Amino acid sequence: MTLVIRNSAELQDKVAAWKRSGMLVGVVPTMGALHDGHLSLVKAARAQSDRVIVTIFVNPMQFNNTDDLSKYPRDEARDLALLDEAGVDVLFAPDVAEVYPDGFSTTVSVSGVSAPMEGEHRPGHFDGVATVVAKLFGMTQAGRAFFGEKDWQQLQVVRRMVRDLNLPVTVIGCPTIREADGLAMSSRNVRLSHEDRSMAPLLHQVLQELAASLRAGADVGVALASARAELAAKGFGTVEYLDLRAGDSLAPLAQLEDNARLLVALWLGNVRLIDNIPV
Amino acid sequence: MTLVIRNSAELQDKVAAWKRSGMLVGVVPTMGALHDGHLSLVKAARAQSDRVIVTIFVNPMQFNNTDDLSKYPRDEARDLALLDEAGVDVLFAPDVAEVYPDGFSTTVSVSGVSAPMEGEHRPGHFDGVATVVAKLFGMTQAGRAFFGEKDWQQLQVVRRMVRDLNLPVTVIGCPTIREADGLAMSSRNVRLSHEDRSMAPLLHQVLQELAASLRAGADVGVALASARAELAAKGFGTVEYLDLRAGDSLAPLAQLEDNARLLVALWLGNVRLIDNIPV
Repeated sequence: MTLVIRNSAELQDKVAAWKRSGMLVGVVPTMGALHDGHLSLVKAARAQSDRVIVTIFVNPMQFNNTDDLSKYPRDEARDLALLDEAGVDVLFAPDVAEVYPDGFSTTVSVSGVSAPMEGEHRPGHFDGVATVVAKLFGMTQAGRAFFGEKDWQQLQVVRRMVRDLNLPVTVIGCPTIREADGLAMSSRNVRLSHEDRSMAPLLHQVLQELAASLRAGADVGVALASARAELAAKGFGTVEYLDLRAGDSLAPLAQLEDNARLLVALWLGNVRLIDNIPV
Repeated sequence: MTLVIRNSAELQDKVAAWKRSGMLVGVVPTMGALHDGHLSLVKAARAQSDRVIVTIFVNPMQFNNTDDLSKYPRDEARDLALLDEAGVDVLFAPDVAEVYPDGFSTTVSVSGVSAPMEGEHRPGHFDGVATVVAKLFGMTQAGRAFFGEKDWQQLQVVRRMVRDLNLPVTVIGCPTIREADGLAMSSRNVRLSHEDRSMAPLLHQVLQELAASLRAGADVGVALASARAELAAKGFGTVEYLDLRAGDSLAPLAQLEDNARLLVALWLGNVRLIDNIPV
């Protein structure tokens, strides 16, 4: 049975007991509305840790858009059933006042990797992510933390923070899980209209074709412009970014290099989709 | 024999071995140029921990004034002899590149308690303090950390950060150690001219008289103004602040309350002195 804990003091007691027995704790930080992407992280955590904590916290500090925050899907009962079936030891689901009590006033900021793309289009987002992840690492005392590559830039921000603050946790990135039609799984996908949902997989298809053309030697600027045009032609909304970047530093690339990655954010109806693939 | 470690990976191995044996690690973060104030922290750490690490790192990130940084006194050989005599297990003395390697880009910021006084007069100072202390906690994995009350505002900033980021460390504040004539011990005192050194204890005397007059019911604004005038008359330089504040939140007080504290920063010759006392 997955034990539900809402209080960080109770969580710390639980974890301290595990650690006294020499157990390695794995954590999977989530915002709930769990899908197979999250469950793949849980599976990795189970394989690489003695005890697994999944956290569910829809973190207001990382939402730059209050509408997105209020519409973020929540279904804890369903999530708990999935976690129980997946063999998770603890679901840590604190409320906002537990995470940000009165007087809270500390921010963890990562510059550099957090600046472009999501950082540009969602001001403050990564400060919220870095701060809450630092807190969750503090509360869970996890030795391993599992994040999806779907949020590639977030993964680089978390890695950078862990290295910079000498946090005693190993960050493990896990591959993006996709629907059979190629759409990257995301909790926000449920907000797509029926029509938009059937169109959404074209994004991954365009990305794959773009990667293939870059590998075949196409000029980077020309290929990116042509992919943007194709997305517009297919009926997608505003493309916030579609970039070729170094996978770790996220520096923009004018030419293909090892470890290059394509990253995209765009709108489809009133839903913002992000995706990324290696080239 | 105090073991000198300069590399955080080596430190982590050492600490991991201690922790496997269930030992509680205490840390005393310093910038070196050790005096009896530091040694009182070491003594407290020895009494309340199984193993004691003293860190010496003159942290460029917390110096807003490059002249102050270059003139900061350094004498590691003497410091090491003192620590060895005091029974310290490890002196961790990393260089700047070990603490801030290429690509370092994370900042820990505490708002609120860090804003007035030192925060106003030393822009960026407390970001530097919070960031390096978070790193030292990460590197040392200490369960207890010892800080002097001499840097009262710094102590509140560190306490706030530890609470806000759920760091698994207990912060212990230790009383200010003073010379026989009342001057608060500080590594910067060696930079006072002979004449200024003989005048410096008047600062503590004025603070004590001010506290006595507040306890006797004097109007706060009038008493502070009169103490400022007295400091000027005695020949001190610019008073950056002389405030009555709540000891924990550092909110300014117009009336005496429980846990009130007087805090001062002023110049004497080309040395900046700070001090504080409870009222």
